[in-house]
Amino acid sequence: MRIARRGLLLVLSSPSGAGKTTLARRLLDADENIRMSVSVTTRKPRPGEVDGVDYIFVDRREFERLKARRKLLEWAEVFGHLYATPRAQVLDALQSGNDVLFDVDWQGARQLKKRLSRDVVRVFILPPDGKALERRLKARNQDSEATVAHRMARAAAEIEHWDEYDYVVVNADVDEALAEIKCILAAERLRRDRQSGLDAFVAAMLESI
Amino acid sequence: MRIARRGLLLVLSSPSGAGKTTLARRLLDADENIRMSVSVTTRKPRPGEVDGVDYIFVDRREFERLKARRKLLEWAEVFGHLYATPRAQVLDALQSGNDVLFDVDWQGARQLKKRLSRDVVRVFILPPDGKALERRLKARNQDSEATVAHRMARAAAEIEHWDEYDYVVVNADVDEALAEIKCILAAERLRRDRQSGLDAFVAAMLESI
Repeated sequence: MRIARRGLLLVLSSPSGAGKTTLARRLLDADENIRMSVSVTTRKPRPGEVDGVDYIFVDRREFERLKARRKLLEWAEVFGHLYATPRAQVLDALQSGNDVLFDVDWQGARQLKKRLSRDVVRVFILPPDGKALERRLKARNQDSEATVAHRMARAAAEIEHWDEYDYVVVNADVDEALAEIKCILAAERLRRDRQSGLDAFVAAMLESI
Repeated sequence: MRIARRGLLLVLSSPSGAGKTTLARRLLDADENIRMSVSVTTRKPRPGEVDGVDYIFVDRREFERLKARRKLLEWAEVFGHLYATPRAQVLDALQSGNDVLFDVDWQGARQLKKRLSRDVVRVFILPPDGKALERRLKARNQDSEATVAHRMARAAAEIEHWDEYDYVVVNADVDEALAEIKCILAAERLRRDRQSGLDAFVAAMLESI
């Protein structure tokens, strides 16, 4: 049964090391009605990155021009580079009943919520415990203890914002966590106020009774 | 990963003939953390009905006494019999992190929402179309056309309240509708504000980092 609906913005945040990137990729693979938001950025493309797919690469002047013309929904500066979400891309998806996945930190989540409150569904992913987080952050690379400690501090700073989210998923098992995120998405799609076609659907039913 | 949580009240409403009873029974069979609310009633037990399991059977005087002492969460009179939900049963379940399923009409849903707003999750089940509804209402019995017409009118009156619910599920396929209701329940359990143990969980994690 297909009822027309408005899309939604699924915002995933987590400390680095909680498995968010894997969960996001698997969700995108499993569900054809949700797409990753493609950000605009002023950083240079890395080898293999495709303009318009991985990012929309612009220079700082173009970025400022987009911002001034209110073409950007939210933006942030990270390590000296600017990143932003194009407004039209998101609004078009919402109108056509497609969902957009955002992999952003608590500041991005807050901006999106402020701009498009009713359409935003925020999920925070927690690691099962501090030890697991440390293990994952260490396993990823051969960095120095100081670097790992710095990452842990950043992770802790992100975790402190867990209570600004609508849902919290603990990623102790990646399949279970993925199933939980899929259910959140399925449920949010069934919310009455997102199913924009229900009015006409029910009216037609009452006519026919 | 077990985080302590507050229970919730899952309210299912639908016109008769939309498959709600089947869906409720299958949900109860599949999920051990949700139980049916046991109503107090003044109607006489039918053969096979067990006091305290199917209903709590009381006389009208006892019912009025419970009502006067504020022991009832919501009540209604249907065909000359009184029905109500005992308050303690529900509050105990919520506290202990168990969910309670309510099979009530729009008036019951409205009362529950008014009493326990934050704990109530309302799902309205729609038939796929008016013809399917008529077919199901006719298939159930060998009643006269007038009786079926009366049932159709009552069904239409219930459907008109669809827009007071949080979620709407169209029951075109019972397995699919059941999966959707399960997802709604799973997602609602993952809401941050229901996971009462998260505060302590995150505090312990931040301690250990």
